[in-house]
This record gives sequence, C-alpha cells and structure tokens, in this order.
Amino acid sequence: MSDYLPIIGITMGDPAGIGPEIAAKVMANPSTYHICRPLVVGDAAVMQQAVNLIGVSLKIHPIKTVAEAGFKLGTMDVYDLHLVNISKLEIGVISVMAGKAAFQAVHKVIELAMNKEIDATVTGPIHKKAINKAGYHFSGHTEIYAHYTNTKKYAMLLIHEGMRIIHVSTHVSLRKACDLIKKDRILEVIQLLDDACKQFGIKQPRIGVAGLNPHASDGGLFGNEEIQEIIPAIKETTKKGFQVEGPIPADTLFTKAMGGLYDGCVAMYHDQGHIPFKLAGFSWDSEKKRMKSVKGVNITIGLPVIRASVDHGTAFEIAGKGVASPDALKSAIEYAVKMAKHRKQRELKL
Amino acid sequence: MSDYLPIIGITMGDPAGIGPEIAAKVMANPSTYHICRPLVVGDAAVMQQAVNLIGVSLKIHPIKTVAEAGFKLGTMDVYDLHLVNISKLEIGVISVMAGKAAFQAVHKVIELAMNKEIDATVTGPIHKKAINKAGYHFSGHTEIYAHYTNTKKYAMLLIHEGMRIIHVSTHVSLRKACDLIKKDRILEVIQLLDDACKQFGIKQPRIGVAGLNPHASDGGLFGNEEIQEIIPAIKETTKKGFQVEGPIPADTLFTKAMGGLYDGCVAMYHDQGHIPFKLAGFSWDSEKKRMKSVKGVNITIGLPVIRASVDHGTAFEIAGKGVASPDALKSAIEYAVKMAKHRKQRELKL
Repeated sequence: MSDYLPIIGITMGDPAGIGPEIAAKVMANPSTYHICRPLVVGDAAVMQQAVNLIGVSLKIHPIKTVAEAGFKLGTMDVYDLHLVNISKLEIGVISVMAGKAAFQAVHKVIELAMNKEIDATVTGPIHKKAINKAGYHFSGHTEIYAHYTNTKKYAMLLIHEGMRIIHVSTHVSLRKACDLIKKDRILEVIQLLDDACKQFGIKQPRIGVAGLNPHASDGGLFGNEEIQEIIPAIKETTKKGFQVEGPIPADTLFTKAMGGLYDGCVAMYHDQGHIPFKLAGFSWDSEKKRMKSVKGVNITIGLPVIRASVDHGTAFEIAGKGVASPDALKSAIEYAVKMAKHRKQRELKL
Repeated sequence: MSDYLPIIGITMGDPAGIGPEIAAKVMANPSTYHICRPLVVGDAAVMQQAVNLIGVSLKIHPIKTVAEAGFKLGTMDVYDLHLVNISKLEIGVISVMAGKAAFQAVHKVIELAMNKEIDATVTGPIHKKAINKAGYHFSGHTEIYAHYTNTKKYAMLLIHEGMRIIHVSTHVSLRKACDLIKKDRILEVIQLLDDACKQFGIKQPRIGVAGLNPHASDGGLFGNEEIQEIIPAIKETTKKGFQVEGPIPADTLFTKAMGGLYDGCVAMYHDQGHIPFKLAGFSWDSEKKRMKSVKGVNITIGLPVIRASVDHGTAFEIAGKGVASPDALKSAIEYAVKMAKHRKQRELKL
C-alpha cells in the first residue's frame, strides 16, 4: 500500500498568474514522480509557454482522458481543455478568457475525482474577479468544490509545518461569524479536524480549540459564546474520546501550537486562523514590495473528493517572470498524496 | 538633552509572581543605570528576597520619598510600601495580601508620576484575580491608569521589534468590539499611534490600518464597517497629512509590518492585534510545558503619564525559581526612557 502512487490532478490555476509556471516547476521535479502519478488539468499551450519560460526540458503530452497519461518524468501529461488562445493571453491581467479557463480546469478536476479517474486533486491559484467576470459566481475554490460535490458539511483547513488550523466559518462578516458560533458546527469541525489529522498519519490528534472572545471571555466576562456553545461542544467531543482542550485564548493558542502542544487548532473565524497562519508561513520583502515566501497548504475537509491547494494567490505582479516559488504547491501535492493513500487503505479495509 | 537620565518608577508586580525577580535582574544590570535613574516601587522585604533568590550582590535601600533615592548601581532604591509580611507570602499563590501590595504599588507609581516626582512608570506583572480578591475591581493596568489619571481617550499599544500595534478596543466581547468600530475612535487611535511613533523617534510614521472583516470585507461583500467607518477615518487622516494605508486584510497586514512596510498598525479588536504580537514575540517550550520566551512591551497611549509594561503575566508556575527572563522588562524600560526624553524635549520647546 505504501508503494501505491496515487494519480493526482493538478489544475494550472489562472493562466495569467503564476499557476502554470509553478505547476511546470513541480512537474520538472523528479521527487514529484517519486510520490505520485501527476497530471496537469488545463491547457497544453499555456503549459508549453510555462515550460519555455522556466527553461526546463519537458515535453508536453496533451491528453483527453486520464487513460492516455504516461506519468513519465520528462513528459508532462496535460488534460487539455483548449480554452486559451495563447496569442491573446495577457500575463498579469484579469480576463474573461483566463477566468473561464481557470474555472473549467477546476470543474474538470472535480469531475475526474468524482468519477474516481484520479485519486486526489490539487489546485493552483485562481483569481476571484476573473472567474466572476467569466460568469462563475463563487468566492473561491472551497465554494466551487462544495457546490459541485453537493457537500454541506465541510471546512477550510490551513497547514503550515506543525500548525493545522480548521475554521468554523470563512468568508462572512465578523458579525455573522459570531452568529455562526454554534455547538453543532463546532462539534462538526472538531470531528473533521480529528479525521483530517488521522489522514495525515497522526494517530491520536491533540486538538486545541480557540475562544471567540478576548481571553476566551475570562469566564463569561466578555461574551457568552464560550459558555453557551464552545464549552458544551468540547465536553461532548472529549466524552466521545477525542483529545480536545479549550477554549484557549486565541492569542496564546497558536503560539502553543507552533511549539508543538497541539496537532490541530480550531479557529472560530477566518482571520483568527489566517493571521497566525500567514504570519508563520509568509514573509514580506520590503525592498521588492512583495511577499518573498508564501508557504502553506489549504485543504478542504469534508468533501467526497480530496482537495489540497496552495494558499497564495495568482501573484499577477510577478507572473511570467519565472521567479515564483513552487514550495507551497509541492507541499499541497505531498498532503494530497498522504490523504489519497490513507483513503485507499480505508477502502481496502472496508 | 540626550544625556538626561529620566527617573523611572518600576513596580514590583504581584509579589507572589515573577515581577520581583525580574525587577531585581534589571536593577543588577549596569545597562539600566546607563539610560535612566531607576527605582522600584513596592516592598523592600520582597525585593530583598528576590535579590537573595537570584544571587546578586545588591544592597536594598528603602526610601519613603523619591528625593531619598541615590540611583547608584549596586544599591537598589525601593520605595517601600510595607504591605507584605514576608513570612506569610506564598510564592505562586493568589492572595489578598499580594493583590493589595501589587495594586498599591501601581497606585503609588501613578501618583508619583502625576506629581512629576518621576518621569515615567514601568509596570511588572499583576494578577487580575489577586487584585480583585483584594477588592480592586479592574481588568488590568490599563484600566487602573485610565481611572486614576482620569483619562478617556487612551489605547493599548503592543510592541515587539518593528511591530507596533494599537487597538481600537481591548477587553470587550467580539460582538461589542464590532459595535465599537466607529470613525471617531479609529481617527483617535490613528492619531495616538502616530504620536507614539514620533515619541519613539520615527519622524514620519507609516501606518497600516486593518480591516474588521475577512479580506477587509472584499469591497463590502462581507460586512460594511470598512466602507462606513474605517475608510472615512483613513481618508480624514491622510487629508491631515498622516501617512496611512488601509483597510488592509488583517491576515497580510501584520506579515507586511513584520517585513518593515509599516511603523505601526491599527488592530480593530483585542485578538486581531494580540495574535500576531504573541506569535512573533512568545515561544512555547513543549518539553517544559511553558512559554520559554515572552518578549514584547505593552504601552498605554494617551495618558498624562508615561506607562510601559511587560506584556506577560505573573507566571506563578515558575515564580521563585529565578529562571524568569527580564528581557521584556528591559525593553519596557527602554521604551519608557525614550518616551520620557521625548516628553522632556517637547516641554522644553513649549
């Protein structure tokens, strides 16, 4: 089982962004083929351009079915959707053509995974404005996946090194996020996080749950969500045998998690999880006025298919220069492989 | 002016915590006397015990007025309040006696500063439960200072290396914090932050203002506080000549500030500022199950007196062992000195 090489579908992302070039970089890296059978879903002409840009000797092999893929290092299998007219593609610019191509690649990779033609999906960065301009009204990958897999119970999990953060809510106002602090949802994300950690090979995940309010409300002094919703959810999960602590004041929880006290953290809202995640994984280059490092993986948990992703954006300002780092994409592939192998093992046991 | 050595009153903090030992450590350090004339406000017997604990050759000089202080390295001037019966003091335990002594030291240092007998105040860690048990109902130093100096417009500023974070609100529920996002208050904290940065010697402070909602609401998609309150406040400050940018999504603002893009940041609520501050300045020792580093300074801005403080707690679990690091207290003293010198210069100019 540990020798099994899962088939991983990697979307190219927005063709005007850094997605194609980082995909080309990982496809040129022998270590990718050591752990999986990768193929790119997108556009052969775009990937040819990316290969030329980074100057690697990769042959492009356009395919129309997964069965045609050869999975050989040196030849990049590209599930070709023919949606980009390369002579009209402007790098670093939002366009309907690029938005459509980016969206359709995601749509296709979901379809391939739902049909079990591939074992897992990994997504490159798309641009929200581009897909919306192209007529697809979603706020991001997570929502697209939930929609096309018809999933109701899912959550966003961010991973950087030992810090794994799941979110009770994501793209809603902070007031709305407060309304969404409900026992049942917290219970759900604790279980999703526990299961995810097990998929990554952690046998008894230690989970830390953040408070919503400062100092986790200091015993109810500032806010009542801890007492009414969070603590009852934690109690129920510990009764069930999960290893869960909390509510822990959010300003120390993530420091403790970075130090190894927890395998996973529950963040009560988007920024509570994203602030520590990006502070730990991203770094700003003040001379070049851009992020110089954007490490970290974004995984949608609770879907019928596996989805791991980079958490950075299309980085239009550096696209087409060949300088973008493939580190986050490499990590995303590694996580997708772990989860695919774990899923395979579970299926064999059933 | 640059030769002026400000008189700094340092409170011992809760006598059962690490406050006395870290105060003893900085008083034994020659570099403290190079930059200021320090005295400890608290209890001579407690400080004698702390000196014995850390094993330094410091003489205790109990004083009843600032005029009696000698400010000589090797002799620690202690403004002695005689509130601790050392034979009854239990290290690492909350008590009425310790809470009262901690509170009265803070009360006294404020009085000394208001009477201009000292140039600035620096506070050691107190325990909220201890002072409340002793009958003083405050949620922390900031509120004690605001009360006894009769200050209405003040804010908490956290500093770790190049990251300086002011808070629109602090110890209120997250729902209440959303209600407190008002143009006038944001205007106020931007001005307080700009002024504070200037007191630290930054001539033209570059300020980054966080959004309240995820992605700073993505143009109003998730929440309206950015459009209704934050953007109007920023526009007004830039009109007045302040260098202010925002609203910036909170999950990248602090990464950018760490990278040097901003001299100061405005956080919209307690945890938004405290999460990055503690992730950057604190670190967790997973073997010893305690924080191994707790760097960072907490300054109350807007008061008629200068107040800088450590941002860590009483650390009862390691108190009395002599292992507590005085780094944060040292930084707090350095900031107090900078601000005191700046205030002196302003007064001379008037």
